Amino acid sequence: MPTDSWVNETLYAEWGQRFLVKRELARVKSDFQDIMLFESHTHGRVMLLDGVVQITEMDEFVYQEMIAHVPLLAHGDAKRVLIIGAGDGGVLKRVLQHRNVEKAVMVEIDGEVIRLAKEFMPGIAGDAWTDPRAEVIVGDGIDHVRQAPAGSYDAIIVDSTDPIGVGEVLFTDEFYANCARILTDRGLIVNQCGVPAMQAEELRDTSLRRAKSFPDVWAYVAAVPTYVGGYMTLGWAAKDAALRTVDAAEIRRRADVAGVLDTTGYWTPEIHVGAFNLPPYIARHLPRR
Amino acid sequence: MPTDSWVNETLYAEWGQRFLVKRELARVKSDFQDIMLFESHTHGRVMLLDGVVQITEMDEFVYQEMIAHVPLLAHGDAKRVLIIGAGDGGVLKRVLQHRNVEKAVMVEIDGEVIRLAKEFMPGIAGDAWTDPRAEVIVGDGIDHVRQAPAGSYDAIIVDSTDPIGVGEVLFTDEFYANCARILTDRGLIVNQCGVPAMQAEELRDTSLRRAKSFPDVWAYVAAVPTYVGGYMTLGWAAKDAALRTVDAAEIRRRADVAGVLDTTGYWTPEIHVGAFNLPPYIARHLPRR
Repeated sequence: MPTDSWVNETLYAEWGQRFLVKRELARVKSDFQDIMLFESHTHGRVMLLDGVVQITEMDEFVYQEMIAHVPLLAHGDAKRVLIIGAGDGGVLKRVLQHRNVEKAVMVEIDGEVIRLAKEFMPGIAGDAWTDPRAEVIVGDGIDHVRQAPAGSYDAIIVDSTDPIGVGEVLFTDEFYANCARILTDRGLIVNQCGVPAMQAEELRDTSLRRAKSFPDVWAYVAAVPTYVGGYMTLGWAAKDAALRTVDAAEIRRRADVAGVLDTTGYWTPEIHVGAFNLPPYIARHLPRR
Repeated sequence: MPTDSWVNETLYAEWGQRFLVKRELARVKSDFQDIMLFESHTHGRVMLLDGVVQITEMDEFVYQEMIAHVPLLAHGDAKRVLIIGAGDGGVLKRVLQHRNVEKAVMVEIDGEVIRLAKEFMPGIAGDAWTDPRAEVIVGDGIDHVRQAPAGSYDAIIVDSTDPIGVGEVLFTDEFYANCARILTDRGLIVNQCGVPAMQAEELRDTSLRRAKSFPDVWAYVAAVPTYVGGYMTLGWAAKDAALRTVDAAEIRRRADVAGVLDTTGYWTPEIHVGAFNLPPYIARHLPRR
């Protein structure tokens, strides 16, 4: 790829975003996917997997904060957290910001994503990789949830690609049943569910699957600049419906205790609470309660 | 433009969205700008002005609902509304949905935009053009606010292009001073302020100008799928700061009275209230209070 050529995201065949490349950094075919990293003019460094934008230095904080802080603060006392995917380390960093987290286990299937993120985007994870509370496993998240003992985790965060290709197995009935089993009594799982304006079926189909294993299934939204198409949704499945109706004052108190208050660029207690109020065009894809 | 070629939005030089064109509908050079309409594969019909996406049939409801319903329901009894720009008629339609609106004056500088919207996107405005409460003026919004008597309007909605090119004059000190003059005592103005992740200076600079004429200056957000880059902001300038702290129950009651409740795809009373809670990365561009 020559300097100053355009990279077109190939997520959708007939619409999408494109970046003018300042400098290509890496192009690797791993055992699982095509990985490309480049320096953009507008978004800092950018990583694509199979042609789909995963992360940019400019706006990664939006997604990371919303996928990490919302479940942990909604729970209020999450001590053991499982992260599946998120090979760049950005979710791990946000989870470890929480003082009350005792153990964060991260299971990423593609070691090349971790290696390239460490080399070319070291700021994304910071020193999370060497935090004594972190355990980073290069392996299969499906196997991990199959083998983990019952009640092992308080929260599970699935930061996968869309339910196509390598990410598909992270959206099955069996996967969610195992997640329910290995979560504690007040446990919950969140996972990225795409952009409903373009991928409504992703939210609809996977929500129905989550509803087979969890009593409370919903979603919350985040406006992520580079996940183009309006709001993206994060799927929500919990054993206790009260977790998503905690008010802003209590969320603020918990964030202060956890040490994340006033460290964020997107998340605030009010945005946390408001993110569960879905526009009707999104809400209609969720299971009726 | 041949069928099945790509149209690249030219708003930003180094990043942007592109559409695969199913069929070109019109390409007109008006006295003010280049207008292009095409049928897309993904977003229905699309209109561009000077290479920048203005409206698509697929997601226009998001922007129209948020720029029209929020100021009118925040005010609570807006009877006379001025719309500047919005030549497609979509804002006019949403304003006229409100039963209590007695007069909606729309001033669009480019008659060709109105003509082409009527011909190729008739569903956007519906029968708003012939509503007896509507007055559609092809003319200069600057002149209109200069000449209108004091206290003529309860709300002003500026649906312009960005403060470059033809839209630039709608963001001056003189324009805002005139808006303050022609608004009633509880009057307010909202206007589109771009996507802060890419255009933060637009929100910052125009907010400072609004603050010279209005005691309460803020912004609210909407996740508009085709205004790519995360949240877009709508600038807010009001004579009475209480207008943006009305609670969801009262907004719901007003929407019911107005006849807009349960007619929307994006707006809800809760989203209305939550839209004023800005992520820190956006809030930091607003004047300190």
